Amino acid sequence: MENNKKFAVIGGGSWATAIAKMLCENQQKIAWYMRSTYALEHLKHQKHNPNYLSSVAFDINKLQLTNDINEAIKFADIVIFAIPSAFLSAELEKMTESLEGKIVFSAIKGIVPETSLIVGEHFHTQFNIPYENIGVITGPCHAEEVALERLSYLTIACSDEEKAKYVAQNVSSYYIKAKTSDDIVGTEYAAVLKNIYSIAAGIAHGLGYGDNFQAVLMSNAIREMKKFIKKVHKMKRNINDSAYLGDLLVTGYSVFSRNRMFGNMIGKGYTVKSAQMEMSMVAEGYYAVKSAYNLNLEYKAKTPIINAVYQILYEGKDAKSVFNKLTEKLD
Amino acid sequence: MENNKKFAVIGGGSWATAIAKMLCENQQKIAWYMRSTYALEHLKHQKHNPNYLSSVAFDINKLQLTNDINEAIKFADIVIFAIPSAFLSAELEKMTESLEGKIVFSAIKGIVPETSLIVGEHFHTQFNIPYENIGVITGPCHAEEVALERLSYLTIACSDEEKAKYVAQNVSSYYIKAKTSDDIVGTEYAAVLKNIYSIAAGIAHGLGYGDNFQAVLMSNAIREMKKFIKKVHKMKRNINDSAYLGDLLVTGYSVFSRNRMFGNMIGKGYTVKSAQMEMSMVAEGYYAVKSAYNLNLEYKAKTPIINAVYQILYEGKDAKSVFNKLTEKLD
Repeated sequence: MENNKKFAVIGGGSWATAIAKMLCENQQKIAWYMRSTYALEHLKHQKHNPNYLSSVAFDINKLQLTNDINEAIKFADIVIFAIPSAFLSAELEKMTESLEGKIVFSAIKGIVPETSLIVGEHFHTQFNIPYENIGVITGPCHAEEVALERLSYLTIACSDEEKAKYVAQNVSSYYIKAKTSDDIVGTEYAAVLKNIYSIAAGIAHGLGYGDNFQAVLMSNAIREMKKFIKKVHKMKRNINDSAYLGDLLVTGYSVFSRNRMFGNMIGKGYTVKSAQMEMSMVAEGYYAVKSAYNLNLEYKAKTPIINAVYQILYEGKDAKSVFNKLTEKLD
Repeated sequence: MENNKKFAVIGGGSWATAIAKMLCENQQKIAWYMRSTYALEHLKHQKHNPNYLSSVAFDINKLQLTNDINEAIKFADIVIFAIPSAFLSAELEKMTESLEGKIVFSAIKGIVPETSLIVGEHFHTQFNIPYENIGVITGPCHAEEVALERLSYLTIACSDEEKAKYVAQNVSSYYIKAKTSDDIVGTEYAAVLKNIYSIAAGIAHGLGYGDNFQAVLMSNAIREMKKFIKKVHKMKRNINDSAYLGDLLVTGYSVFSRNRMFGNMIGKGYTVKSAQMEMSMVAEGYYAVKSAYNLNLEYKAKTPIINAVYQILYEGKDAKSVFNKLTEKLD
């Protein structure tokens, strides 16, 4: 693979901003698309994203900033999508530039609501992108700690190892260590499912369960995740690698996680609607649990935690009694 | 097994107090030994342990309180030891009553410094207690949450399943769920090793590493624990069960853990001596890492985290540079 492939980042949120920062450590120029013209103008003149990770100063000469998604795609060989899954379809509708021959990486960690597919599958089935041109960037990684240049480990998954390596090299720096993996399906599902378990952790906290129960919940969650992913895509993987267990822990133990916060409000008695109204950010796990639950009607993995979250969020069942029953199924 | 076996709890600390509370939910009378006559008198008259979990009110009619370890052992068929491993030998020297025919459970979670053995092995080799009469009580379980009657899960390990079941029944209540296991060696080593990883988590925090790194550290720790325990005692076990992974998480993520606090002080630049002087409670991991490191000279499991903690605590190496090297070995 040639060593001069160019990158575009699609998205203006905190994770997109973190990825742009990482790439700027290695690239001379990247394209960066975001919807907000206000944020773009602010970036151009103040060198900071006003809305997310605003402490990060960018070298503006390295950024081709645009609010035209097609300009960003045209610029790049490797397009990294980092927008909430709920907004992906709307953004892709604006696309007139072809993705043919491009390498598409997902940093989304969600399920596309319109197709109930993980992002890699969505690009494959909806845009005919071959799997060897699809990749996943996954944590454990809070964007906020990238902003602070605190040591973080990423996993870059692609079935084409050369492409995984190229992306890994280009996000690496003294504060980022990136390893590669060929498990694009497993790493992406792990990133999706962890948000559901994080909602569960939040509900438990909101209901008054303590740290002892949280440890049991996480221990059951990783076993459940292993079973689920094995059904979806069976291959040799160590579920305790950072991309799976690490990613679960960084979210499930974070008090800043949107998913955990959302769950916490549900546990404290908010309705799903009112909890959503209170939160200005999207809790990816809300969409993920519906898709995972429906997908599992076919796969039939034993997933008591996913089922419990689904019942609470989509069947209007009472969190307290659902969790009461759930505790009998954990060990 | 007869259904009327009686219990003694040896120890006056928080975990001993939690176990006494659990047993009182099911037993008419238990023996409870502690060194402190002040605490004993306070318990008798005020119904609370003045030093630990002082919010827990005991029904004094259920307690045969004593500061004579032999009286407690004589009373009981099942003796549960719950004192810091560093003090175990001194207590056992006071013992004139025979342990022959008694069932001995360890709730200690440490290595006996004088013999470098886990507690079960210590009782087997030093007191000729057959393995079928030895058991382990393990978490994930902060004693403080037992005091609050927050739902907690225990694992009761004994190679004799009947004995494990009997103990499990007698600690269970509406806030305690206990499962059984036949892996006394693995569960006890897990309980010991987690304290070392908790010191590592504390050192990392003290050095300024963040949540992203903590998740990577825990993900590597559970893989390292699996390798180590497999070398010590190979059998079929799921390292992600609550007794292993759950116990690691509840300690490694707890800001109240003595081991994590101790590590944190080391990371912040305290010497080992001064950190020990500052802490009035014993950090079990301090002894555990020496034994685990020495044991592993024979087993040769790949244990970069244990090695790093050992180098810092026993070879006087600088925490910052040791962790700098450690980060290269994690993934």
